Amino acid sequence: MKIVIVGASGTVGRAVVTELEKNGEHALIRVGHRQGDMQVDITDDASVEALFAHTGKVDAIIATTGNLFFGPLNEMTTDNFSIGLQDKLLGQVRLALKGQHILNDGGSITLTSGIVADEPIAQGVNATTVNAALAGFVKAAACELPRGIRINLVSPTLLTESEAAYGPFFPGFESVPAARVALAYRRSVEGVQSGQVFKVGY
Amino acid sequence: MKIVIVGASGTVGRAVVTELEKNGEHALIRVGHRQGDMQVDITDDASVEALFAHTGKVDAIIATTGNLFFGPLNEMTTDNFSIGLQDKLLGQVRLALKGQHILNDGGSITLTSGIVADEPIAQGVNATTVNAALAGFVKAAACELPRGIRINLVSPTLLTESEAAYGPFFPGFESVPAARVALAYRRSVEGVQSGQVFKVGY
Ligand SMILES: NC(=O)c1ccc[n+]([C@@H]2O[C@H](COP(=O)([O-])OP(=O)(O)OC[C@H]3O[C@@H](n4cnc5c(N)ncnc54)[C@H](OP(=O)(O)O)[C@@H]3O)[C@@H](O)[C@H]2O)c1
Ligand SMILES: NC(=O)c1ccc[n+]([C@@H]2O[C@H](COP(=O)([O-])OP(=O)(O)OC[C@H]3O[C@@H](n4cnc5c(N)ncnc54)[C@H](OP(=O)(O)O)[C@@H]3O)[C@@H](O)[C@H]2O)c1
Repeated sequence: MKIVIVGASGTVGRAVVTELEKNGEHALIRVGHRQGDMQVDITDDASVEALFAHTGKVDAIIATTGNLFFGPLNEMTTDNFSIGLQDKLLGQVRLALKGQHILNDGGSITLTSGIVADEPIAQGVNATTVNAALAGFVKAAACELPRGIRINLVSPTLLTESEAAYGPFFPGFESVPAARVALAYRRSVEGVQSGQVFKVGY
Repeated sequence: MKIVIVGASGTVGRAVVTELEKNGEHALIRVGHRQGDMQVDITDDASVEALFAHTGKVDAIIATTGNLFFGPLNEMTTDNFSIGLQDKLLGQVRLALKGQHILNDGGSITLTSGIVADEPIAQGVNATTVNAALAGFVKAAACELPRGIRINLVSPTLLTESEAAYGPFFPGFESVPAARVALAYRRSVEGVQSGQVFKVGY
């Protein structure tokens, strides 16, 4: 399959690339903000349109990207809150809305959430909101996508590789190796399910 | 209690006002976009700040308002999608973020979702996303609100009073009278629970 992965250079993305390149069955287009085979800014309509004009038709679109705002609720402003809405939520929604038109029949879209969707953490109100929204998006979009196109969401707990960076925000959470998380993306791309949240390491 | 209700003139809001005024225990401030005791635009920071400067300290904030975008997924643009994000989602989040600071100890915030959060309908991708996001927001915010302040979400099915307008979008859904939906707002305001979604007529 011809697969575009946006966020390919990230902690999650690198593991997904490794997993999907394992057996040589797929041709991957690695996309990043600054790195990769191609560049895109998921917060910008024209940039995403230019990306898909470049890739042409594909069999799968994977997003392993998206910024959130972390900070205490009692100091949170609507501008703070908009960061997650514009970036991780609308950025991935944009990839799906525009990407649906360049997918081959039977293609798939796989987006990325996170355990904070279901398990709130301190300073994580924006993250829970955005990740929960993505679950809603995928559930509803799956009902309307035509031509056998599927859409799923992967929701990992904290990655072991990110423990040094984010561990203190996740007291008592087990972490999961990125390589295990990557399997869920393969399950979404090569499987038959749609409208699902694949939770990893919960 | 002194209660601000934003959306008081609407189909849901009118029923909530009737319910909460029943026994004369509460002093209600009816807020609308154009109607009511006071006016506000929930999509505008300055407008919401001006509202709360006017109301002063209150015991409960209720939102029964918020616009969504309805339309087929295969024609949906990010601008379409932003309607629900900016209005029903960020509008209600704005009321909560700013409202937390004018609530008395033990006060409450009650927001409004809808059954499409859990049961997708045709052309409803934006609605499912926004309503699911609100559930995430309430769940996470409940964990961080100080001073015994609570937050809940009321998620009604189609109102009987709205069948003429929206019935065709809800094939096979039972409707629920607004008066029953209004009880859930009383449950949120006068009860002890927080971080809950009160589903009505599911
Ligand atoms: N790491 C974890 O423990 C963990 C756990 C649960 C969920 N998640 C979620 O997984 C996703 C990826 O996290 P990560 O830790 O792998 O992130 P990361 O290591 O910071 O990688 C981010 C990736 O996104 C790309 N990117 C950044 N801004 C972009 C933009 N505006 N447009 C397009 N691409 C952009 C970066 O490209 P360049 O390198 O080219 O700048 C990079 O490839 C996030 O949504 C995160 O919430 C992560
Ligand atoms: N009706 C249903 O069957 C149903 C079912 C499930 C969920 N819901 C949800 O319940 C909520 C209310 O629905 P509804 O049918 O009662 O709506 P509605 O009858 O159209 O009433 C809308 C209310 O919101 C106010 N409003 C509109 N724009 C506003 C703005 N920018 N800032 C502040 N206030 C604004 C209006 O004030 P003015 O009158 O002053 O303009 C009015 O009071 C919505 O979130 C809807 O999705 C409705």
